[in-house]
Amino acid sequence: MNTFTEFDVKNQRNLTMLVDFYELTMANGYLNKGVQDTIAYFDMFFRRIPDGGGYCIMAGVEQLIEYLSNLKFTKNDIDYLRSKNLFSDDFLEYLLNFKFTCDVWAIPEGSPVFPNEPLITVRGPIMQAQFIETMVLLTVNHQTLIATKSARICEAAKGRAVMEFGSRRAQGYDGAIYGARAAVIGGCSSTACTIADEMFNIPAIGTMAHSWVQLFDSEYDAFKAWAETYSDNTVLLVDTYNVLKSGIPNAIKVFNEVLKPLGKRPKAVRIDSGDITYLSKEVRKLLDEAGYEDVKITVSNSLDEFIIRGVLENGAKIDSFGVGERLITARSEPVFGGVYKLVAIEKDNKIIPKIKISENVEKITNPAFKKLYRIYDKGSKKAVADLITLHDEVINESSALELFDPNYTWKRKKIKEFYCKELMVKIFDNGNLIYKSPSVMDIREYSLEERNKLWPEVLRLENPHAYYVDLSHKLWELKEALLHEYSSVFE
Amino acid sequence: MNTFTEFDVKNQRNLTMLVDFYELTMANGYLNKGVQDTIAYFDMFFRRIPDGGGYCIMAGVEQLIEYLSNLKFTKNDIDYLRSKNLFSDDFLEYLLNFKFTCDVWAIPEGSPVFPNEPLITVRGPIMQAQFIETMVLLTVNHQTLIATKSARICEAAKGRAVMEFGSRRAQGYDGAIYGARAAVIGGCSSTACTIADEMFNIPAIGTMAHSWVQLFDSEYDAFKAWAETYSDNTVLLVDTYNVLKSGIPNAIKVFNEVLKPLGKRPKAVRIDSGDITYLSKEVRKLLDEAGYEDVKITVSNSLDEFIIRGVLENGAKIDSFGVGERLITARSEPVFGGVYKLVAIEKDNKIIPKIKISENVEKITNPAFKKLYRIYDKGSKKAVADLITLHDEVINESSALELFDPNYTWKRKKIKEFYCKELMVKIFDNGNLIYKSPSVMDIREYSLEERNKLWPEVLRLENPHAYYVDLSHKLWELKEALLHEYSSVFE
Repeated sequence: MNTFTEFDVKNQRNLTMLVDFYELTMANGYLNKGVQDTIAYFDMFFRRIPDGGGYCIMAGVEQLIEYLSNLKFTKNDIDYLRSKNLFSDDFLEYLLNFKFTCDVWAIPEGSPVFPNEPLITVRGPIMQAQFIETMVLLTVNHQTLIATKSARICEAAKGRAVMEFGSRRAQGYDGAIYGARAAVIGGCSSTACTIADEMFNIPAIGTMAHSWVQLFDSEYDAFKAWAETYSDNTVLLVDTYNVLKSGIPNAIKVFNEVLKPLGKRPKAVRIDSGDITYLSKEVRKLLDEAGYEDVKITVSNSLDEFIIRGVLENGAKIDSFGVGERLITARSEPVFGGVYKLVAIEKDNKIIPKIKISENVEKITNPAFKKLYRIYDKGSKKAVADLITLHDEVINESSALELFDPNYTWKRKKIKEFYCKELMVKIFDNGNLIYKSPSVMDIREYSLEERNKLWPEVLRLENPHAYYVDLSHKLWELKEALLHEYSSVFE
Repeated sequence: MNTFTEFDVKNQRNLTMLVDFYELTMANGYLNKGVQDTIAYFDMFFRRIPDGGGYCIMAGVEQLIEYLSNLKFTKNDIDYLRSKNLFSDDFLEYLLNFKFTCDVWAIPEGSPVFPNEPLITVRGPIMQAQFIETMVLLTVNHQTLIATKSARICEAAKGRAVMEFGSRRAQGYDGAIYGARAAVIGGCSSTACTIADEMFNIPAIGTMAHSWVQLFDSEYDAFKAWAETYSDNTVLLVDTYNVLKSGIPNAIKVFNEVLKPLGKRPKAVRIDSGDITYLSKEVRKLLDEAGYEDVKITVSNSLDEFIIRGVLENGAKIDSFGVGERLITARSEPVFGGVYKLVAIEKDNKIIPKIKISENVEKITNPAFKKLYRIYDKGSKKAVADLITLHDEVINESSALELFDPNYTWKRKKIKEFYCKELMVKIFDNGNLIYKSPSVMDIREYSLEERNKLWPEVLRLENPHAYYVDLSHKLWELKEALLHEYSSVFE
């Protein structure tokens, strides 16, 4: 049954058929109507930051690359599709010979990102550029959601280590695996998810469950057996019976009787239930009194950014946090609403911008093939705004730049001493991969650096300052003109 | 790069290393202490029904079977583990020769299940029975969460078809794939997730995106192109510009000009935005006036059970619902809190019950190796209670049965005319698979039948009647005795 266990399938899944069925019916329609090779431009972007936060953390690009690199329909896929009696033979033949030839731009993973700016831009034959919609969204929505939540939780922990502990409550296997990856990108220092370490080189850690303690005749016996096995790395779970009356006294006894004679120091105790503020303070006292000032206290139990902020404000003595279900599912807001919209097509070698209108003004898209710049203040080196321009606009760093709110155009600001960075990098050129993903730990580092370039007001957990994402004059004028063309629709 | 595209990997992933790291440190500890072969019993159960509902729908057993059937450590896995400098050579050798030999019982998928009853029971060497904790929980928590949410949404739709549309907002690829599977188990009639159809034979469906409409010079041209391609199966998305002023008039024009001459009837129109109650009523009128009374109206747009109930109460004319992000992530409560607890060990061939105590009374476990019965009233054939007994208890259907609330033992009820069914079936015997999973569509059918055996009061969306899950006298007495043993802990 299990014929390929020695083969490392982990990074090699073919997810071509993980696609909304309508992408296939549209593709068949494009071919039927002879428009399959029309060059189209799509943007992926989002409209709202989850949890009322001030920024999101881009993630998922490496998995998007793997997906696009492995795009291929198998004979089984074709047979399955034929059985639906919807698709032409020409179309099925086309799929069998499918070759990805799009250009793809993406904001690198770990970057802070903001509403209404393109995170991904795809240019290519509409048949292909449309087809990949489901997986672009699924991949980036999921990991950006978790990386963003992780960033919030790490922000609340104020430099203390946060460990990702959520596999058992994740939404499916990839929810656990790529969720752990995204959590580390967002700032977690480690994970309990072993396979994520094996795949991505992010430190996996773990100690014992309550069942270890229950298996032995007493808590003391259980701790002793543990310390004897892991004398270099002793972390004891002290809340199976009663933290202060049983767990800590037994732990100290074992530290003294097992580790001390070996000249070893215990690492930590873990509390997984109860009033962690109170317990951590009392545990700290007991450990200190016994001469274990260097032994850390780590806690877990339905934590999130608000609980962590609360226990620290109340003086809890906690060195690190294990965060499970509320991180791995982004429980407070478990959906990242990224969308993928047609923004232009090419006709007679000219780029024709397209706009998706809506009665809901916030749902109107930014048309055209675009570029995205981040503007930094020269003195403070802080990011002051992102600017979306047409693809062929160049920003002159030596003259002043006028920014204005695209919805309230009288809100204007002149920026003089600045420099700017183009945010999107090209990752596929005519279907060829031209980008190498950094390691996850490098992305984590990069992300922490980039977040340091945001003002603290933007990083705030609640009621943050809204970071500016503005349109260039040219782009704004183009958008207005297109809206006027469609104004009759609202009559 | 992509060397195995012709190989059907979809059902064949080896997820052995998807495990919380502490399962490995514990396993290494068991071996080090020579207790690795102690026979242990673990129960998986949950404590609370999400969304304040009255029941959950069991799901995930087929994937649990696949995982357990494919349990195997590769040489790469062993090399990775060796690099952690935590595990003994004996242990790594053991893993390389790992063979699963546990007994496993499970409640069949699709069954309504309730808090505090075992969904899964595992018996075997503690090293194995403990190791599989992460994946038992991850698999059953995820699919049971989504199946339960789907059941609520389908309940609200009152017999109208509900289509699962959430892949792009799922939490990872498996969130989309197994989420679609679970949604169908819970009652959805179809999915947009193509690969889920290919893998599980659940109908995949789909029409067009707004980008199809945008690509053409006009909405009329876009609809015409679609109807010409799919004349047998024309479903048009009518809200790209203005549903009533543009979408429906253009749709009717195309129905008349393209389909009518061919003698074909259109299938449906889809509305994906706006006030769907108002729009659906107006669309119904326009379609009826044009002689398209048989054309269905299908809607989507951030739906859930409460919105569906609301629009139907307000007289919306809707034939089917497409439900996306709020179903695939169970957005209102995205965590299913199943746990996996040690309930007994064997010593000298005797079963020694174990209990996990807690100051929080609801967190105290039901000890011992147990059986689970569902009690049905003979007259109405409705399920009246579940009864958890010791594993060797037999219920005599010919004499009256006294049920009592395990927390409020004065709440008692005598049941006379009843029959009962054992809920858990054995799926692995000494590591050998002895159960065949039904098809997903058969599970869906079974689930709808079993839900029909619950009183409407239990099926209610809000403030349902709490279904009884009681303990037998013998089990209750055993639990009390164990609690008294530990009472000193609370002093």
